[in-house]
Amino acid sequence: MNKHLISAADLSKDDALLILDTAEELARVSERSIKKLPTLRGRTVVNLFFEDSTRTRISFEAAAKRLSADVINFSAKGSSVSKGESLKDTALTLEAMGADAVVMRHGASGAPYRLANWIRGSVVNAGDGTHEHPTQALLDAFTMRRHLKNLEGRKITIVGDVLHSRVARSNVLLLSTLGADVTLVAPPTLLPVSVGTWPCDVSYDLDAVLPKSDVIMMLRVQKERMNAAYFPSEREYSRRYGLDRDRFAKLPDDAIVMHPGPMNRGMEIAAEVADSARSTIVEQVANGVTTRMAVLYLLLGGEI
Amino acid sequence: MNKHLISAADLSKDDALLILDTAEELARVSERSIKKLPTLRGRTVVNLFFEDSTRTRISFEAAAKRLSADVINFSAKGSSVSKGESLKDTALTLEAMGADAVVMRHGASGAPYRLANWIRGSVVNAGDGTHEHPTQALLDAFTMRRHLKNLEGRKITIVGDVLHSRVARSNVLLLSTLGADVTLVAPPTLLPVSVGTWPCDVSYDLDAVLPKSDVIMMLRVQKERMNAAYFPSEREYSRRYGLDRDRFAKLPDDAIVMHPGPMNRGMEIAAEVADSARSTIVEQVANGVTTRMAVLYLLLGGEI
Amino acid sequence: MNKHLISAADLSKDDALLILDTAEELARVSERSIKKLPTLRGRTVVNLFFEDSTRTRISFEAAAKRLSADVINFSAKGSSVSKGESLKDTALTLEAMGADAVVMRHGASGAPYRLANWIRGSVVNAGDGTHEHPTQALLDAFTMRRHLKNLEGRKITIVGDVLHSRVARSNVLLLSTLGADVTLVAPPTLLPVSVGTWPCDVSYDLDAVLPKSDVIMMLRVQKERMNAAYFPSEREYSRRYGLDRDRFAKLPDDAIVMHPGPMNRGMEIAAEVADSARSTIVEQVANGVTTRMAVLYLLLGGEI
Repeated sequence: MNKHLISAADLSKDDALLILDTAEELARVSERSIKKLPTLRGRTVVNLFFEDSTRTRISFEAAAKRLSADVINFSAKGSSVSKGESLKDTALTLEAMGADAVVMRHGASGAPYRLANWIRGSVVNAGDGTHEHPTQALLDAFTMRRHLKNLEGRKITIVGDVLHSRVARSNVLLLSTLGADVTLVAPPTLLPVSVGTWPCDVSYDLDAVLPKSDVIMMLRVQKERMNAAYFPSEREYSRRYGLDRDRFAKLPDDAIVMHPGPMNRGMEIAAEVADSARSTIVEQVANGVTTRMAVLYLLLGGEI
Repeated sequence: MNKHLISAADLSKDDALLILDTAEELARVSERSIKKLPTLRGRTVVNLFFEDSTRTRISFEAAAKRLSADVINFSAKGSSVSKGESLKDTALTLEAMGADAVVMRHGASGAPYRLANWIRGSVVNAGDGTHEHPTQALLDAFTMRRHLKNLEGRKITIVGDVLHSRVARSNVLLLSTLGADVTLVAPPTLLPVSVGTWPCDVSYDLDAVLPKSDVIMMLRVQKERMNAAYFPSEREYSRRYGLDRDRFAKLPDDAIVMHPGPMNRGMEIAAEVADSARSTIVEQVANGVTTRMAVLYLLLGGEI
Repeated sequence: MNKHLISAADLSKDDALLILDTAEELARVSERSIKKLPTLRGRTVVNLFFEDSTRTRISFEAAAKRLSADVINFSAKGSSVSKGESLKDTALTLEAMGADAVVMRHGASGAPYRLANWIRGSVVNAGDGTHEHPTQALLDAFTMRRHLKNLEGRKITIVGDVLHSRVARSNVLLLSTLGADVTLVAPPTLLPVSVGTWPCDVSYDLDAVLPKSDVIMMLRVQKERMNAAYFPSEREYSRRYGLDRDRFAKLPDDAIVMHPGPMNRGMEIAAEVADSARSTIVEQVANGVTTRMAVLYLLLGGEI
């Protein structure tokens, strides 16, 4: 394992499998109703959030606390950062305070790399701009493995606003490392120009790829980023790229439906699809805590 | 005991007495300087607050931590809720993250009932709209019991803006279950139309009921809700319904004065009355932690 | 030791040395990788912050958690304080909830004295208006001692906006108690009128005092407080009072450079000076946690 987890691209297949296998073990421990492990007792995990993200923050907080770490939440809003302190000085401050791991959410792509230059503790990227969100990809892979056993050769379809999605990018990188075949489906205006270099296929025809998908992952439409330059209207988007009942019926019988949340029900995904037995959306949240426990456990080198 | 605590109306007399007796035991433990019990170790309590209420939030936080639970604070402001996530999806998220109890404050009456439909953990209502605030009623009953021994047949007078007060409603319901006789005193415009169906009396003459009250509970005037439609002026309110020195003198010698806080000193209650030896206002705060410990302990089925 | 820590002026030389020696011991324990001590288990420390100060808040939070205390963060913004609750009622509330120590940051000088009148727990001043910030002075003294061994007769120069600096005032008081010789250097408009009564010298010529300084402490320029009434311009300030490379060269070879943070790099201190080997700025942050552990440990009368 590396010392930091910043990009899914940095994970070798062995690294990734180690994290997933560790998460599997932790899930089993937790199923035996042992909810708290002493592993990280005395360690301090700082949640350094420059953007609000309650879901991600409390997932990491729950993960760290179940490993008995102390958690300090540092919302950068209203902090000395807004008084002009540089990221470097914030980093040195957290370092000096004894942070063993800093979980960082930042609006700028690449910010966690800079942070990692300045601190001895581990940096975990909890989402940086439109770049990456590697623990989301890990929890997604964990969820897929629980349903599909093996990811080798599996067909994963990711649908939506790939251009602004760090979730899509991290998933493509990790899933390709794990041997799966990923297809992106998006309107051309919502694909990054670099997509040709990504280890995946691209399609503009959702209905054509549905019947051969083992997994369909719907991305959140970020309404504030949708505008005429990208797409004519929300309704048109939903009509062409939303997963409604009819499209759901075209999936193979054992395919699963994923979404990183929070959902726009009725927009990218119909409510009845989100709530169907083959949706793993709630499971993904639970797996998020378990996977993040595995990441913190491995990075901080606990001693179970 | 039920699995949730949403309304004082759901508590049978036995339930209520069990909570009060448990709180009494916990208070005795705490008086022996044992401030932390291992009872809820490994359990997670989420404070889900859609409205700010630092007092109530830290009371629940202190209660949960004294029982060794992990506490996660989730202020819904700036969260994905404000990005359009439904309460249902928030509930499923907390459920999936392993919340054993969700303590919820919400601006809409009835919101905790909806939450309880979606999660396996316990829901504790920490105030929903103008509906209920059952742990406030329990801590008030606990405080009365400590002074009056038994509530059976006791005369409790509740004074003020009943219309907007979840505290008043929860108290009326719980106190009537416990056998006390409650009289509400309020300007007619600040009584709900349904008050005729409540298990209590109504009076418009504070001075008349004072001499026969064992307890007088002053409600907070919520200035932002007071306007010409309800009452001519703050000064007029204070003159007719405030508990000043003269009115205080009309109470029986062993009557106690209560207020849920935060007070408007000089408005609904004179400073010297609030600070008198017969005021239980500070005691109520301490009893709030103890009573909430009892509620969490019983709902989460600890194993002392 | 006193029960509270509100002003550096209240500390006798013995008190101050006890805190510094205790911090030294705690630092040694921590260097042996024992990061968490059970000393304050079951105790509750409340961070009551009426002004944002993430750095100070998380330093106290980390200190309290390393001693196994429970920490409750109470940001007074949006709390009932803003609904008109008096400081007294807030104090009584925290007291009743069982706060063993209240760490208070407040915009008004003297607020912690008022708080201390109302609660039985310990009050620790984490900065009150332009008055004092005693734990900052203690961590600074601790840092100096680690480099200079003894403070007796040492020459400490403090440079900058003394008028608005609680850090400067607390340092002058504590350092003089510890036998050091302090010189303040500031533009005349940024010195308080009372400075003549302080136990220190004043100079307007930074270049003249540099060669005989064992320590040079640069204060943060609070840009929002700088205006024409105090000083012509930021650039002029930097030119006359900033610690740039040339001035740094005039210091004795073993002098150290301090700054309470957060810095304005390029303003009161050049980046290369801040990052030089003789800068203790990052060390001060680490020492802040250790010193605050010592303060909480001694005030709450733990039982190692």
